[in-house]
Amino acid sequence: MSTLVQAGLDPGREAHVGEAVRPSSEYVDFPESEPLDLDCEQRLAPFRVAYKTYGVLNAQRSNAILICHALTGDQHVASNHPVTGKSGWWETMVGPGKPIDTTRFFVICPNILGGCMGSTGPASIDPSTGKAYGLSFPVITIGDMVDAQVRLVDHLGIDRLFCVTGGSMGGMQVLEWAARHKERVFSAMPIATAAWHSSQNIAFHEVGRQAVMADPDWCGGRYLEEARVPRRGLAVARMAAHITYLSEEALQRKFGRSLQDRATKTFSFNADFQVESYLRHQGSSFVDRFDANSYLYITRAMDYFDLAAEHGDVLANAFRGTNTRFCVVSFTSDWLYPTRESREIVQALNAVAADVSFVEIESDKGHDAFLLEEPELFATVRGFLGAAARKAGLKIGAEKS
Amino acid sequence: MSTLVQAGLDPGREAHVGEAVRPSSEYVDFPESEPLDLDCEQRLAPFRVAYKTYGVLNAQRSNAILICHALTGDQHVASNHPVTGKSGWWETMVGPGKPIDTTRFFVICPNILGGCMGSTGPASIDPSTGKAYGLSFPVITIGDMVDAQVRLVDHLGIDRLFCVTGGSMGGMQVLEWAARHKERVFSAMPIATAAWHSSQNIAFHEVGRQAVMADPDWCGGRYLEEARVPRRGLAVARMAAHITYLSEEALQRKFGRSLQDRATKTFSFNADFQVESYLRHQGSSFVDRFDANSYLYITRAMDYFDLAAEHGDVLANAFRGTNTRFCVVSFTSDWLYPTRESREIVQALNAVAADVSFVEIESDKGHDAFLLEEPELFATVRGFLGAAARKAGLKIGAEKS
Repeated sequence: MSTLVQAGLDPGREAHVGEAVRPSSEYVDFPESEPLDLDCEQRLAPFRVAYKTYGVLNAQRSNAILICHALTGDQHVASNHPVTGKSGWWETMVGPGKPIDTTRFFVICPNILGGCMGSTGPASIDPSTGKAYGLSFPVITIGDMVDAQVRLVDHLGIDRLFCVTGGSMGGMQVLEWAARHKERVFSAMPIATAAWHSSQNIAFHEVGRQAVMADPDWCGGRYLEEARVPRRGLAVARMAAHITYLSEEALQRKFGRSLQDRATKTFSFNADFQVESYLRHQGSSFVDRFDANSYLYITRAMDYFDLAAEHGDVLANAFRGTNTRFCVVSFTSDWLYPTRESREIVQALNAVAADVSFVEIESDKGHDAFLLEEPELFATVRGFLGAAARKAGLKIGAEKS
Repeated sequence: MSTLVQAGLDPGREAHVGEAVRPSSEYVDFPESEPLDLDCEQRLAPFRVAYKTYGVLNAQRSNAILICHALTGDQHVASNHPVTGKSGWWETMVGPGKPIDTTRFFVICPNILGGCMGSTGPASIDPSTGKAYGLSFPVITIGDMVDAQVRLVDHLGIDRLFCVTGGSMGGMQVLEWAARHKERVFSAMPIATAAWHSSQNIAFHEVGRQAVMADPDWCGGRYLEEARVPRRGLAVARMAAHITYLSEEALQRKFGRSLQDRATKTFSFNADFQVESYLRHQGSSFVDRFDANSYLYITRAMDYFDLAAEHGDVLANAFRGTNTRFCVVSFTSDWLYPTRESREIVQALNAVAADVSFVEIESDKGHDAFLLEEPELFATVRGFLGAAARKAGLKIGAEKS
């Protein structure tokens, strides 16, 4: 409780702030003596990685699948969210008998560095001041997130991950794992992602950041100290982003021009249209579970992501010498990370004779398709993991070797 | 000056507010006795239509082209803007020797009802209170804008317009003119537009409105009285909208991931990327010339636009019996009003055996292509107007008949 009081917050008022400083999931604390060297050339210490696991690690420690979450995701991938009480964000994919089958695999899902569900981020307490970091938190990168995950995987005593997977920003982490830690990744499945963030995507993120920063309740990033929350700015940011997660077709099919609980237009600024009502709900429910500064830091990390630039402007260099088996997945109606950006990854992998398959899934659900009921995605994941498991000679369960 | 003082404003501080209440262009005032019957079933009176003209009306009064402007446009189509000092928004298209040749045609460009450059809108003074209308201004429609323009055209003594044209929301007005006032439109050229506003477009508009309304300086719409300006909210709205005016290809080509005046990333929330700097500039320069409440009202009018719904849900009914010659123009990379929405207009016109040609112009510039240097657009406009003028037996210049 003391840290929350230090942060000037009533813990009941913003449940997610409680999770930020005292996660209900497992976590590991890395002490002052084990700092994380960041890409910005600062050192972060101490730091915490909060995570969830599902299933059982086998005796060979060879059946671990690391799931990397997206911008607004967290470690609660296959169990109820402690703030919202809702199902895990990928429960359709992860669980007993599911494509990522927790009766076969040991699933690890860490909250990213910079997040707000227990891993160290801007809402965490800076031990040097006793206050939330806010904007004094260093600007981190996708590579930094991965390096923090490496520490967790070391801590769990796992040398090689059977698979690393994730969608969207999760896919960026998959690519970074495969590039920075080749020998530790047996297979990799980047979904609905890209090796670099496009100009348009940077632009949408900048709109979101400006919306947050324009809110006087943001207080220059010190809102936790001031016991305020930039709700309106963060809601606007979420609304704008949410449009990019769907396809125009999906919006038209789902909402069209239908009116919300009324027969005729009201000639007002009420949410006459269902799509307005839906977006407002997306905005307001998001602020109940997410930290505004985390949103700034994570979007920034995505903007900075450019795997080719990290490797002499040649994407193939990122993967040179890899023995990892890849499966790259895209969706036809995803305009945030369109198929052509997945093809660039595949081409780079082909250029270094990597083992890669590529699946473009026909869907009108847009970028969010990776989170939704998509039978072809489920079949792809199940098939890829099954083949990789046979190749790896994977022993299943916690049986002793 | 008194109206500005009544509105609690220093006229020098926000030049566009001066234009809203005392336009530097021509204008016509319609008195209390000549109210405008609005679609919301309210009456607006008195009201003003501010406008610019270029060229000379011929003796037969048969060479008039009405240009309808888009969301953030105004009547200053082919001459310097009184607030920004910049060139007119369509000077590449309109002027002596240009595709819309002001040595041949008499060009009329009114500021729309609900706008903020002199036509009656929410920044105008409500004569019943002596204060700016703000949110007490009635919610208007594209049809209301057109009806106000009809009054102007009547005032100018013109029975039939040789052509009505405009892009984006301007195109919506063109369609409404052609539907509501068939006999008064000899030819019509709707450009980069649609007969209804899609769910995604409503969604983007709602984000913009929420951004404005989230700004405490919006003051529930009474910012003029309070001598405040919701600059941050309106800037965010403009930034989000601006992305939709460009194509991803255009953004990537223009900015890519280039950094702004720096060699390396700053690991901060500065505008590291050129695209961020560009968007911030778009946002901040917009608020210097535009009224926030006008932005709300005009986006609302666009959201409400659905020409089929006004005609028994059959778009063709809107044009039944038309003798107008149409030329419908779209751009390949326009994702705000994609070509398929122009095709719907063309199909509806074909269904009533209208005289219609359709040109889809190859361009990677996105929706904004209609405002830019697009030789194929210029050739299309020049060709269509030339053929229509021959068909109309148009006499040019101010010669007496």
